[in-house]
Amino acid sequence: MLRWQTAGESHGEALVAMIEGLPSGVAVTSQDIKDALARRRLGYGRGARMKFEEDKVRMLTGVRHGSTLGSPIAIEIANTEWPKWTEVMSADPLDHDIPREGRNAPLSRPRPGHADLTGMRKYGFDDARPVLERSSARETASRVALGAVAAKFLEQTLGIRTVSHVISIGGAGVDENAPLPTPDDVAALDASPVRTLDKDGEARMKARIDEIKKSGDTVGGVIEVLAYGVPAGLGTYVESDRRLDAALAGAVMGIQAIKGVEIGDGFLEAVRPGSQAHDEIVTDEHGRITRLSNRAGGIEGGMSNGQPIRVRAAMKPIPSIPRALRTVDVLTGEAAQAINQRSDTTAVPAASVVAEAMVRLTLARFVLEKFGGDSVSEIRRNAEAYLASWPEHMR
Amino acid sequence: MLRWQTAGESHGEALVAMIEGLPSGVAVTSQDIKDALARRRLGYGRGARMKFEEDKVRMLTGVRHGSTLGSPIAIEIANTEWPKWTEVMSADPLDHDIPREGRNAPLSRPRPGHADLTGMRKYGFDDARPVLERSSARETASRVALGAVAAKFLEQTLGIRTVSHVISIGGAGVDENAPLPTPDDVAALDASPVRTLDKDGEARMKARIDEIKKSGDTVGGVIEVLAYGVPAGLGTYVESDRRLDAALAGAVMGIQAIKGVEIGDGFLEAVRPGSQAHDEIVTDEHGRITRLSNRAGGIEGGMSNGQPIRVRAAMKPIPSIPRALRTVDVLTGEAAQAINQRSDTTAVPAASVVAEAMVRLTLARFVLEKFGGDSVSEIRRNAEAYLASWPEHMR
Amino acid sequence: MLRWQTAGESHGEALVAMIEGLPSGVAVTSQDIKDALARRRLGYGRGARMKFEEDKVRMLTGVRHGSTLGSPIAIEIANTEWPKWTEVMSADPLDHDIPREGRNAPLSRPRPGHADLTGMRKYGFDDARPVLERSSARETASRVALGAVAAKFLEQTLGIRTVSHVISIGGAGVDENAPLPTPDDVAALDASPVRTLDKDGEARMKARIDEIKKSGDTVGGVIEVLAYGVPAGLGTYVESDRRLDAALAGAVMGIQAIKGVEIGDGFLEAVRPGSQAHDEIVTDEHGRITRLSNRAGGIEGGMSNGQPIRVRAAMKPIPSIPRALRTVDVLTGEAAQAINQRSDTTAVPAASVVAEAMVRLTLARFVLEKFGGDSVSEIRRNAEAYLASWPEHMR
Amino acid sequence: MLRWQTAGESHGEALVAMIEGLPSGVAVTSQDIKDALARRRLGYGRGARMKFEEDKVRMLTGVRHGSTLGSPIAIEIANTEWPKWTEVMSADPLDHDIPREGRNAPLSRPRPGHADLTGMRKYGFDDARPVLERSSARETASRVALGAVAAKFLEQTLGIRTVSHVISIGGAGVDENAPLPTPDDVAALDASPVRTLDKDGEARMKARIDEIKKSGDTVGGVIEVLAYGVPAGLGTYVESDRRLDAALAGAVMGIQAIKGVEIGDGFLEAVRPGSQAHDEIVTDEHGRITRLSNRAGGIEGGMSNGQPIRVRAAMKPIPSIPRALRTVDVLTGEAAQAINQRSDTTAVPAASVVAEAMVRLTLARFVLEKFGGDSVSEIRRNAEAYLASWPEHMR
Repeated sequence: MLRWQTAGESHGEALVAMIEGLPSGVAVTSQDIKDALARRRLGYGRGARMKFEEDKVRMLTGVRHGSTLGSPIAIEIANTEWPKWTEVMSADPLDHDIPREGRNAPLSRPRPGHADLTGMRKYGFDDARPVLERSSARETASRVALGAVAAKFLEQTLGIRTVSHVISIGGAGVDENAPLPTPDDVAALDASPVRTLDKDGEARMKARIDEIKKSGDTVGGVIEVLAYGVPAGLGTYVESDRRLDAALAGAVMGIQAIKGVEIGDGFLEAVRPGSQAHDEIVTDEHGRITRLSNRAGGIEGGMSNGQPIRVRAAMKPIPSIPRALRTVDVLTGEAAQAINQRSDTTAVPAASVVAEAMVRLTLARFVLEKFGGDSVSEIRRNAEAYLASWPEHMR
Repeated sequence: MLRWQTAGESHGEALVAMIEGLPSGVAVTSQDIKDALARRRLGYGRGARMKFEEDKVRMLTGVRHGSTLGSPIAIEIANTEWPKWTEVMSADPLDHDIPREGRNAPLSRPRPGHADLTGMRKYGFDDARPVLERSSARETASRVALGAVAAKFLEQTLGIRTVSHVISIGGAGVDENAPLPTPDDVAALDASPVRTLDKDGEARMKARIDEIKKSGDTVGGVIEVLAYGVPAGLGTYVESDRRLDAALAGAVMGIQAIKGVEIGDGFLEAVRPGSQAHDEIVTDEHGRITRLSNRAGGIEGGMSNGQPIRVRAAMKPIPSIPRALRTVDVLTGEAAQAINQRSDTTAVPAASVVAEAMVRLTLARFVLEKFGGDSVSEIRRNAEAYLASWPEHMR
Repeated sequence: MLRWQTAGESHGEALVAMIEGLPSGVAVTSQDIKDALARRRLGYGRGARMKFEEDKVRMLTGVRHGSTLGSPIAIEIANTEWPKWTEVMSADPLDHDIPREGRNAPLSRPRPGHADLTGMRKYGFDDARPVLERSSARETASRVALGAVAAKFLEQTLGIRTVSHVISIGGAGVDENAPLPTPDDVAALDASPVRTLDKDGEARMKARIDEIKKSGDTVGGVIEVLAYGVPAGLGTYVESDRRLDAALAGAVMGIQAIKGVEIGDGFLEAVRPGSQAHDEIVTDEHGRITRLSNRAGGIEGGMSNGQPIRVRAAMKPIPSIPRALRTVDVLTGEAAQAINQRSDTTAVPAASVVAEAMVRLTLARFVLEKFGGDSVSEIRRNAEAYLASWPEHMR
Repeated sequence: MLRWQTAGESHGEALVAMIEGLPSGVAVTSQDIKDALARRRLGYGRGARMKFEEDKVRMLTGVRHGSTLGSPIAIEIANTEWPKWTEVMSADPLDHDIPREGRNAPLSRPRPGHADLTGMRKYGFDDARPVLERSSARETASRVALGAVAAKFLEQTLGIRTVSHVISIGGAGVDENAPLPTPDDVAALDASPVRTLDKDGEARMKARIDEIKKSGDTVGGVIEVLAYGVPAGLGTYVESDRRLDAALAGAVMGIQAIKGVEIGDGFLEAVRPGSQAHDEIVTDEHGRITRLSNRAGGIEGGMSNGQPIRVRAAMKPIPSIPRALRTVDVLTGEAAQAINQRSDTTAVPAASVVAEAMVRLTLARFVLEKFGGDSVSEIRRNAEAYLASWPEHMR
C-alpha cells in the first residue's frame, strides 16, 4: 500500500512531502527531485515568481547514499522567500503585534474560482490568508517532488516511463494527428516553451498566450500524460474503487484548476459508433496479441491492457486576473474587486508536469498492489514471473 | 466514514450490495430501491434482457420497519434468470460434468473494449466467463440500489436532491442552452425514452439510435448529474485526495464504459479566457452572497460552494456489437470474431442513473465527514448549526 | 488489499458477510463454511440456542464450481428462527401495528457490560432492541464464515495453518507447560468440550463451569490462537499501523467481550529480565538460522519472524447473568434488573474459534500486501521466490 | 478522518511527523511539543543518550501564530547529533568511499528481540543498519510530538484530558489499590523518576531497576494511560474495525516492545464471575445515570461509555543487553554475540508517555468521526448539542 501526503503553505517556511510504502533499493537523489521541480517552473506565460532561484530540496528521511531504505521518505522544499514572511507566517505566536498591512493585510475579498470564500466559511476564518496559503498551486511542488521518486520506482522495477505535454491553450493547439511524444522526447519537450513537439502548435499556443496577456486576461488549456511500458493487469474490474481509470481520474481531477479528465479518446468516444470506438485485437508477425489502435488509452475494464496509458485533463484559466473579477468584501458585505495575488497568464505547461506526477504516483500504487514486494529486485522478479506465466496464445 | 461494496456475477444467484456508516433513522423501504432499479432498466435502445420482470429486492440487514438502524445495510437483488444458470454458475462444485456448450461453452474470444482479455491474463483464466460475469454492467444495479439509500439519507438530513439526464447520444443531443432539469423533473425525465426534457433533443437522439441500430452498430453519449441543496463546504483543498471534485471524478469514471468526466463546464473551461471562466460573486437583494453563473459546477477549491453541483460523463459505445469486432481466439491463437453477449444499441440513459447513484454515494460520504453524527436528527442539527454560524456578510 | 465487512441483526432475516480482494483459484465450498460455523457452536456451558439445526449457508457470489473468481465473495447465513421474527424485525414498514409485548416488548433496561445504554444514546433510540440485535455475538458467525475462506487462502498459497484452543476458564486451566496444539490436533480439540488437549485442564475447566452455572453466574476465560507456517517478513517496522502485532491486537480486541490481548508471552514479558525475555538466534544442524524459544510469539519488530505466531486473548464473562445485574429503566429513570436475553454460562470455547477467524483474516491481508498477486499460483510463486532469494546464511 | 504518519531514521538528519485532518483553531505552540518530548526523555534507568540537550522542534506547516489552519501539520525534530552522522547517513550518494568501520561498520549480528534479522530478510539488506535506524525507539519521539497536538485538540474541543503512569517494572510495582492519577497529577508524575504517585511503589521499582542494572540486564514493565472527560458514544459496535477498543489496542500494540494490551481490568476479567465483572448502572443523587465501578475501563460494546478510559500495556525488556544475547553473524553464518547499541536499563516510564500519545491520537480520530467539524468551535458545538439531546432519563 502506497500512501503519500503533502503539507505546507505557499509562504510558509517550507513544503513537506511524505511517501510511505516504497520498497528498498530505489536509486534516487535530491538532484532528481530538483530536476523535476525545475521542469514545473518552466513555461511561457509565467510571471515573476517562477523565475526565482532553484528550489532548496532536502530528503530528510528514508534514503541513504542514494538508495531508498523501505522507510517513509520525507522531502522538505524550503521557501526561498521565507525571510520576508517569518512574522506574517510564523508558526508560533508573536510576542508583539504586527500591523495589518502589506503582507499582513487582511484578505477579505475572496476570489471567484478559488477556494477563498468557501474555505473561510468552512474553517471559520474572516481572512482568506489561511485558505489561499494552502489552496495555492505552490502545493503542487510537493507532488512533483514525490512524483520524481515514484518515477524512479516505476522505471527501476517495471521499466515504466512517463511523459507529459500540452495539447492546447485557450483553444489553440497541436495538430490532432500529431504523433504522440515518447519518454525519449522529454528533453525536447522541456525545451519547448509550451511543452509540445509540434512546432506549428507551439507557435499557435504562444500567440494565444500573447494575445490573452495583452488583454489583461488569463487562459487555461488541455494537457496529456502518457505512460509507456505499463503491463496488462494493473487495476481491476471487480470493485469500482479499485479500477485504474477511476484512480487516475480522481488523482488528476484533484489538481488545482482541473475541471475535466479523459482516458484515451474520452469525450470523442461518446460520438463515434461502436465499430469505430474500440481497439480490435489481432496478432502480430510473431503471433503475439496486439491492437490496431489505442482509443481506450491503455485501459479496458478498469485495467491497464498493455498499451500506452493516455490521460488528458482540462485546466481552467487562473482566476487571479489582472482586470479583476467582481466579488464581495466579506468584512463589509459590499461589492469589491477580487484580490489579485499573481501575475501568470497561464500555468498549463506546469500543470502537465503536475498531472504527470499524479499519474506516476497512481501507477506506483497499483504496481505495489499487483506485485507486492519490499525491494526493487523482489518487485521486478514478481512482475517478470507474472508476464512469463501467460500462455503463449495470450502474450 | 461511509463504506460500501458490491458483489455478484451477472448470471449468478444474486447481486449483493452492502453499505456501512449510515446513521440511524433514515426512512427507506425496499420499494424505494425497486423504483430506482426500474429507472435503470428504462431507455430507448435497450435489448430484450432489460424488459424482464421487476428485480427481486430484499433488504436483509440494517433496516427495521422502514428505518435504518445505524448498522450495515445489505441488499440482495436476486437474479430472476437463476434457474437457467444453477449448474453453469453453481458456487459449489457439481457432482457431475456438464457439457462445454450452450451457456457453459468456453468463451475464448475476448471482446475488444471489455475486460475480457486482460482479466484472463490477470487472474489466470483460459475462459472469459469469470471475467465478463463480474465486469458486466449488471453489477451497476447494486450501485443503483445503494444510491437509492444514499438519496434518502441526503434528502432527510440536508435536503439534498439529485437528478440525472442525457445530454447527447452519438453526437446528437439537447440544445446547449436548454434549461437544466431540477429534482422536480424526475417524473418527466423518467417518461422520456432518452431521459431528457428537451423534446427536440429527444427526437434527435432517438433518430440517432434508430440509425445506429439499423447499421448493426452501437453508440455512446454524454450524461449529466445535478445535485441541488448541497451546502458550501463539502470536501476540502487541504489535501488532494479529500477534494470533492477528485472523489466525484473517481466515482463516475469508475463506472463501466465511462471515458471522460467533467465538473461544471469542464473542457469548455480550457478554451475560455479567465474573465469569462469563473463565477463572479455578488450580493442578492437580501444582501446575501450569490453568483452570476455556475461554470464551476458548484465546486471551487475542491469544495462544494453552495451552487448546484454538475457532473458530466462520456460513455463509450457498448463493445458487444452485432457486426462483431476482430479478436483472437486465445485457445488457438487464431483470428476470430468477438463473442457477442447482448443486444442493446445504447445504454446511455441507464448510465445517467448509475452516475447519479455514484454522485449520491459520494455526497453522502462527504456529508458524513463534514457533519459527523449517528442519527438523522444529529446530522441535521449539526448542519443547521454550521450554516447558522456564518457571519451575516458571508451567507 | 483485502477488505471485509459483516452485516446482520441477531434475529434478522440473515447475516451477510462480504470479502473482497482474494485472488482467483482458492478452492472453497459452502461445506467448508458450515464446518467452521459448526465449530463455533460447540462448547461446554452453552445454552439452548446453540443446539439448533445447522446454519443455512449460501455463497451468493464470487465462487464458481468451488473455486474463487477473484470477485467479491458474499456469504449469506440465514436465520433459521426467522419465521418467528418476520414482523418484529421486518425491514419494511408493517401495514398494521403489532403489540409492544413478547418479542416486540420494548427493551428499556440496558444491560451493564453490553452496548445497550451507550448504543441508545449514540444512535438516539429509546429501546435497546436495535442495539442488541447488532452488538450480539451472533454477528461473529459472519466472521467465522469469512475466516473459513481466509483459511483456505492461507493454506493453498503459503501452507499457513491455524489452530485455536482454550487456556483457562474462570481462572481454571491447562498446565502452563502443556505442549502447544498444532493444526493436526484440530479434530481432537473439536472433540473436547472446552477445546483443549490437556485432559486435566479440561476437567478443571468443566468443573469451574459447573460451579459457576450452579451459582447462577457466568464466566470468561483466556484463549489462544496459533498460526504455523507463516514466513518471516509479514508486517513491517517502518510505520506503526502496518505492524502485524498492531493489526492482530486490533482484530482480536475487536471481538465482543475481549478485554485483553497478548502476543507471545505478553504480560509475562513485563516481569522477566531481558536475558530471559528474548529468543536467541542460533544455527541448527543444517546451518540454518533457528531459535531456542518463542517468547515473542513469532513477531519481532512488528513482523512475523518465521516462528509460530501466538496470540492470546482474555474474554470477560457474558453480562446476561441469570441473577441479573442492577440497571436503570431508561423510560422511567427508576432502578431495575437488567434484561436477560440468553442462557449460556460461558462462550469461551466459541470465542477461540472467532479469534482464530480474526487471525486468519488478518494474516490473509498481510500475505496479500507482502506478495501481491491475483491468483493462487501467482501468490505462491511470489512467496517461493522470496524465500529462495535469501542468502544461504540468512535462511 | 484523521491521518498521521512519521518518518525518520534514528541517526538521520531529522524526524518528521505529519498529521492531517485536524480542524482550524487549535491553539498549539512548538513549546507544547518540546514539553511533551522532554517528558519522554525522563525516567530512572535511562542511559547517556537521553540526557542530551533539548530536542530542536520546528512546526513547519499547518500552524500560524499558534493556531492551527486546518491544513496538514508537519513537525521536524532535528537530530542534534547529526554532524557526527552526515556521511554515514547521507541521503545523497557520497562522492568518495568511507571506511566500513566505527559508525559505518557493517552490522551483521542481528539482535534477538529486534527487527534486525527479519528486516534484513524482508528488505534484502546484508547489514542491519537500515533496519535498526528506523525500527529504533527514537521514532516514538515523532508520535509524542503528534500526540501533543492531539492533546490540545482533545482538551479544546471536548475537555478530554489524559494522563499516563507506570504500574510496575520487572514485577515490582504500585499497590493494586492505589488511587488512579488524574490529569491534575501530571506534574507530580513528571517529578517521579518512575512516573508514579505511589511512593512505596516508586521505591520498589527503583530498587528493581538498580538490581537489574547491576546484573548487566534490562527490564520491562506495565504502564497505564487514562483518559478523562471522554463522552459516551465514541466508537461503535456496528462494525468490528470501528470499535474504540480495537483501535486503542492496535495503536498501543503498535509501539516498539509492547507485547500485551488490556482495556480496563483486562485479563483479570477472565477470572472473575460475571456478577463481579461488570459495572452496574444506577442513578446518582441528581437522578443521573452513573456506575458503581469501572472494570470495563470506560468501554462497552466497543464504545466509550462516559467513564474514564483505561488502557494498560506490557513492555518487554530492551533487547540490547549489556551481557549480549546469542546470535548468528549473517555474513559468515557463525555464532556471535548480538550488537549492543544502547545502555538503558529500562524505558518503561518513557513508554507510558508514548502510549499516552497513541491514546490521544486515537481518541482524536474518534472524536472527529463522531462529531465531524472543521473548526474547534464547530466540533465543540456539535458535541455539546449531542450531549444536550439525550433525554433526561439517559443522562
